[in-house]
Amino acid sequence: MTSASHPHPTLCVEVPLGDRSYNINIGTDQIDSFGQMLLATLPDLSHALLIADAAVEDPWAKRLTDSLAERSNQHGTPIRVSYRSVPSGETSKSVSQLSDIWQWMLDSSTDRSSVLIAVGGGVIGDLAGFAAASYTRGIRFIQVPTTLLAMVDSSVGGKTGINLPTSKNMVGAFWQPSLVMIDTDVLSTLPDRAYISGLAEVIKYGVIDDAAFFDWLDANAAKLVARDDEAVRHAIAESCRSKSRVVGEDERETSGRRAILNYGHTFAHAIEATAGYGELLHGEAVAIGMQMAANMAVDLGMCEASLLSRQTALLRACGLPTTFAAADVDAMLPVMQRDKKVSHGKLRFILPERIGSVGLVGDIDPAAVIRAIKSCR
Amino acid sequence: MTSASHPHPTLCVEVPLGDRSYNINIGTDQIDSFGQMLLATLPDLSHALLIADAAVEDPWAKRLTDSLAERSNQHGTPIRVSYRSVPSGETSKSVSQLSDIWQWMLDSSTDRSSVLIAVGGGVIGDLAGFAAASYTRGIRFIQVPTTLLAMVDSSVGGKTGINLPTSKNMVGAFWQPSLVMIDTDVLSTLPDRAYISGLAEVIKYGVIDDAAFFDWLDANAAKLVARDDEAVRHAIAESCRSKSRVVGEDERETSGRRAILNYGHTFAHAIEATAGYGELLHGEAVAIGMQMAANMAVDLGMCEASLLSRQTALLRACGLPTTFAAADVDAMLPVMQRDKKVSHGKLRFILPERIGSVGLVGDIDPAAVIRAIKSCR
Ligand SMILES: NC(=O)c1ccc[n+]([C@@H]2O[C@H](COP(=O)([O-])OP(=O)(O)OC[C@H]3O[C@@H](n4cnc5c(N)ncnc54)[C@H](O)[C@@H]3O)[C@@H](O)[C@H]2O)c1
Ligand SMILES: NC(=O)c1ccc[n+]([C@@H]2O[C@H](COP(=O)([O-])OP(=O)(O)OC[C@H]3O[C@@H](n4cnc5c(N)ncnc54)[C@H](O)[C@@H]3O)[C@@H](O)[C@H]2O)c1
Ligand SMILES: [Zn+2]
Ligand SMILES: [Zn+2]
Repeated sequence: MTSASHPHPTLCVEVPLGDRSYNINIGTDQIDSFGQMLLATLPDLSHALLIADAAVEDPWAKRLTDSLAERSNQHGTPIRVSYRSVPSGETSKSVSQLSDIWQWMLDSSTDRSSVLIAVGGGVIGDLAGFAAASYTRGIRFIQVPTTLLAMVDSSVGGKTGINLPTSKNMVGAFWQPSLVMIDTDVLSTLPDRAYISGLAEVIKYGVIDDAAFFDWLDANAAKLVARDDEAVRHAIAESCRSKSRVVGEDERETSGRRAILNYGHTFAHAIEATAGYGELLHGEAVAIGMQMAANMAVDLGMCEASLLSRQTALLRACGLPTTFAAADVDAMLPVMQRDKKVSHGKLRFILPERIGSVGLVGDIDPAAVIRAIKSCR
Repeated sequence: MTSASHPHPTLCVEVPLGDRSYNINIGTDQIDSFGQMLLATLPDLSHALLIADAAVEDPWAKRLTDSLAERSNQHGTPIRVSYRSVPSGETSKSVSQLSDIWQWMLDSSTDRSSVLIAVGGGVIGDLAGFAAASYTRGIRFIQVPTTLLAMVDSSVGGKTGINLPTSKNMVGAFWQPSLVMIDTDVLSTLPDRAYISGLAEVIKYGVIDDAAFFDWLDANAAKLVARDDEAVRHAIAESCRSKSRVVGEDERETSGRRAILNYGHTFAHAIEATAGYGELLHGEAVAIGMQMAANMAVDLGMCEASLLSRQTALLRACGLPTTFAAADVDAMLPVMQRDKKVSHGKLRFILPERIGSVGLVGDIDPAAVIRAIKSCR
């Protein structure tokens, strides 16, 4: 099928990072053209390693593998494909899983000309990305995200890594992919709750970076919840555009600009740490965290009350929680004081000024934090 | 002691890598000024982690730690020092040692503003360097090399990494230090054979890159063998200059230029792999490998016979072997055919054209390789 006759136009977002720039292709019904698309980006490819979440093996990883295995590169050499499935879940982001992958790459005769393809959510992208960054000090890497969260957040920006037993994302590398291939078809097997959870990060971009996108979300929430392909593609593309804009200004998190992506997240991490494992999905915690942050901004006179009410309405329209009755103030506060966004004991937050714009506010009184948490119970 | 009144002038070599540029300071009797020197480079330092080879703990790592522990940074904050010793030897470049170091860094409250200092030979530099590259996706890193090989080779150029059980240096990162601090005093505890072995890499730079340095080595071999401080400092500085010139042209080993540093090494790796573990030190194998390569170049009419005789004389004057009676041709050839420098089954070598200049020669007949090996038995 040529792209001219394709019924679903493919959107393309460029991530501007100098000689590490790359494209994010966002389409529908393109899984079986993956091999062709990959060779257009890497015409010399002769060895591809595919690492997939066990939950997406059938049919997604299988169809991707098939689309590769039939192809030859520009020199007429057939592409050799190595395949590995990884158990689903956060516990796979471990030293032992990484070490097994390194050994598997060695056993698969991987060299600097090989490419590693991650097929899964943020767990697989982070894990496989660090394996790609470190094997022979770096090989090429492709992301095929299969959760909405991975499509709009974790597959963009080059952060890769694993967890240590007592601390998340402590070890890793900044390693940019050569291509991100997003196909909305794969979302058809994603449970509703996981899909809706991903929408929280989408709404986040509207609040922190793009008022016009927020308006569009407001008008199209019902289509998004119904997973209308065109609306989903647009929402993903705008989200990737926002994230890549921020990342382009602060690739290695040195200027502080990248911190705005943490809007709602200081609260969310504290909720996740205290609510009991598995109680809330990440995006649900982020939705509640954004509500706490917006409440705090209104309380401190940083923004108008209408921002909070618009954000509340949009989160609700997308089926996301806006309150958390079980929020445990006494447990949350100490967690936040240990959070990375705390500098020299003072609390710092990303707070909205108006829809489309946030700022970093330091020196926040714990009493204001407590009020913000209580406002969402 | 101010540097003006210092009896041993400190040499400084700049490694030119854009915003990753850094200095190599080469001196004598400056161990106890290390804290001062470090703060001159990193005035905001508040947490230093020191990883030392167990063999250099007493007195070198202890004196370095003391020189740090007494100091405060530009804000008057005393420097917090975390210390860890690692067992000597290549087996420490392992996933499990790396994983323990990551956990130790976490337990030591390491963050992006911490600095990791490697004190030891190439083993510690490679291991600690990769830990620094990966912890929170990268923290600052300092090299204090304590073997001659680490001073002239492994501490320069940013290659870091560990071994997999069946393959050396398979996993790692390019991660440049902020400073390399070389003090020739630490060589006083290095056994003679290890010191002499390091001279092979020094002579390598003369052959591949710098004819004037080769002449100087020729004239000063006796001083070097006697470990005359001034001669040793000069030899280290010229070696670092050569290596950083090559690395500056090809930081991530993409253009092929960095391959010239492998002069003698295809033969050396085959010797090391077949001679029996611990039979020869790395530099000894490199000396013999350089002889094989020079013999091959003369044999193929690439250079004059005088190059070989001059190289032979200099290696001998430094106490290095120039022949290896036990060289096993039948075992070495298959190893070389599996070596990274082999492209599409054809043998490729870095061969000298004249003193100070080498080239990459592909398509070499296995018969020529066999003649080269036999010429050194
Ligand atoms: N690198 C970054 O910048 C970044 C940003 C945000 C989050 N993250 C990381 O991402 C991870 C969370 O990502 P996630 O939410 O995608 O989690 P995930 O990868 O664990 O996926 C969630 C669940 O969905 C399943 N799944 C994935 N795709 C599916 C599909 N198409 N159909 C059916 N089931 C499917 C998985 O098996 C898993 O059980 C965390 O580890 C987090 O640290 C990284
Ligand atoms: N990163 C690079 O670019 C690069 C380049 C070349 C080699 N290497 C690596 O370097 C390693 C070899 O380095 P090396 O030869 O320094 O080996 P090493 O680090 O094992 O040191 C050799 C021995 O000397 C001892 N030692 C070190 N300093 C001493 C001192 N001052 N006094 C007494 N004993 C001392 C050590 O305990 C060890 O037993 C290999 O792992 C190799 O892969 C890396
Ligand atoms: Zn998030
Ligand atoms: Zn060497």
